[in-house]
Amino acid sequence: MEKPYVIGIDLGATNTVFGIVDARGTILYSDSIKTGKYAEIGTYVSALADGLKSTIAQVGGPDQIKGIGVGAPNGNYFTGCIDFAANLPWKERIPLAQMISDGMEGIPVALTNDANAAAIGEMTYGAARGMKDFIEITLGTGVGSGIVAGGNLVYGHDGFAGELGHVIVRRENGRLCGCGRHGCLETYTSATGVARTAKELLIQRTDSSLLRKLEPENITSKDVYDAAIAGDLLSVEIFEMTGAILGEAFADFVAFSSPEAIILFGGLTKAGNLLMDPIRRSMDRHVLKVYAGKTKLLFSELNESDAAVLGASALGWEIKE
Amino acid sequence: MEKPYVIGIDLGATNTVFGIVDARGTILYSDSIKTGKYAEIGTYVSALADGLKSTIAQVGGPDQIKGIGVGAPNGNYFTGCIDFAANLPWKERIPLAQMISDGMEGIPVALTNDANAAAIGEMTYGAARGMKDFIEITLGTGVGSGIVAGGNLVYGHDGFAGELGHVIVRRENGRLCGCGRHGCLETYTSATGVARTAKELLIQRTDSSLLRKLEPENITSKDVYDAAIAGDLLSVEIFEMTGAILGEAFADFVAFSSPEAIILFGGLTKAGNLLMDPIRRSMDRHVLKVYAGKTKLLFSELNESDAAVLGASALGWEIKE
Repeated sequence: MEKPYVIGIDLGATNTVFGIVDARGTILYSDSIKTGKYAEIGTYVSALADGLKSTIAQVGGPDQIKGIGVGAPNGNYFTGCIDFAANLPWKERIPLAQMISDGMEGIPVALTNDANAAAIGEMTYGAARGMKDFIEITLGTGVGSGIVAGGNLVYGHDGFAGELGHVIVRRENGRLCGCGRHGCLETYTSATGVARTAKELLIQRTDSSLLRKLEPENITSKDVYDAAIAGDLLSVEIFEMTGAILGEAFADFVAFSSPEAIILFGGLTKAGNLLMDPIRRSMDRHVLKVYAGKTKLLFSELNESDAAVLGASALGWEIKE
Repeated sequence: MEKPYVIGIDLGATNTVFGIVDARGTILYSDSIKTGKYAEIGTYVSALADGLKSTIAQVGGPDQIKGIGVGAPNGNYFTGCIDFAANLPWKERIPLAQMISDGMEGIPVALTNDANAAAIGEMTYGAARGMKDFIEITLGTGVGSGIVAGGNLVYGHDGFAGELGHVIVRRENGRLCGCGRHGCLETYTSATGVARTAKELLIQRTDSSLLRKLEPENITSKDVYDAAIAGDLLSVEIFEMTGAILGEAFADFVAFSSPEAIILFGGLTKAGNLLMDPIRRSMDRHVLKVYAGKTKLLFSELNESDAAVLGASALGWEIKE
């Protein structure tokens, strides 16, 4: 009999959240441990395994679990390792998939990065159900992406494909990126990028704005959203600029993999049509004629608080036994 | 018993060349008909079928043929149709794969565009043998591309993926492209783009160059190559500029699909290291750190005069019977 559940583990810098998920994407039980508390990876995996076992007991034990999927920063699907992840306590290369499997009586474990996990989750439970070609774009602190082509996630030869937040959208005088280069998409269109645009505009311009009441250094994308909703024209314009750049970039992405849809996920999508409308206009204006009007722009249908666990869990269904 | 041969058909605006190919990529017999002679698609397919049958008779008849692959402008793998191809005599949508199969006693026929055919040919017989992730870039009159991810060609949801000649590399004051937009990769890095760079530089600059002996309007990429080989500094610089832009674009392509190799094909590759060295330098300078030094830059190993037929023929092996 097909095992009825999978486990999704979302390894974040602060918390590691895990849950038992059924085939429809319902999280039956979930729990978490504090990632940062474990300076040593062995202790972390032991604590995680203890937590998982208690949770699994509630659904009848390990025989009910088809597989475990892990979404982790710098997670590599091919090697099952996390490699030198900047925000985690363990700075070396960690064979995490193997370690978890060993700690869990051999239940198979697959691992990938957060953005890929979101894409697989979307395909399994969300807006991309039934799609074979789509791109999931995560607009959060950074910009991440998971690319699905012909029904398969594009991992690349080394497992690191899909860094679309780091395609160059401004080749001259582009903003400095955390990656050390200039002009990356995420410097303009992440939540941080939106805040950066706000600070720049407030300096360059003199028109009034609700944002001028705030300390420029503390402005967040949420502040820009709140001001835009309150009718602040400068804030509306910031979303217009953000959407315009996303639309330009998406037009290039379409020339690459001609997806049925580009699906937006992450905190910045709370801006809704303030962001989506300018993306759509810009994409329509920039896309090559052969693709015109063919690619849907959608919001994720994964509940944000559950999405990371759901996405990771979706990997569990794909494991070949 | 496995059928030992496939047929490749290269449908060009002037000639349609076809050949019988074995599993090692040897073209055993080939022939051609004049594409432009047939104003009516039915007559064209009849003439093609007659030519194919005579050729097939030399290897023992249709029972020896596993499948027929066609490389055609605007060829769509999913529909088997060519759609309104600008340079062909037939302006409507033509269900060419079906028509050829009907004319050939039901031998299965698959069809794709030229650039995808080159990629499949490279994977089957050329520099990409054994690779599961690579990008084939055709540098000819235009810039074409075929993308392979996880061992499969990326067709996209509509069969039109892989138009990397039309990603935007210059967003401000970019060159006008045949597609109606500005700044496309192919306006700078096709053979035509190289000639265009030559004309621009000769006007903007005053330094001496062998190219100044030529009528600016008639300068070709071949002229630039000949001059560069003869030590002309301006011509060397033109290849430097071309390679620099290709390297920038390739760095973005790597962020998309993280290929094991980018393989260069087409007339402009005759420039050899005059072009490859600056591409490599530029790509090394622009690529995201996680990919540094991982992606090979290679020249196609398909003989150019055979490549189109070989590429198309490779599709014949992939047909599911």
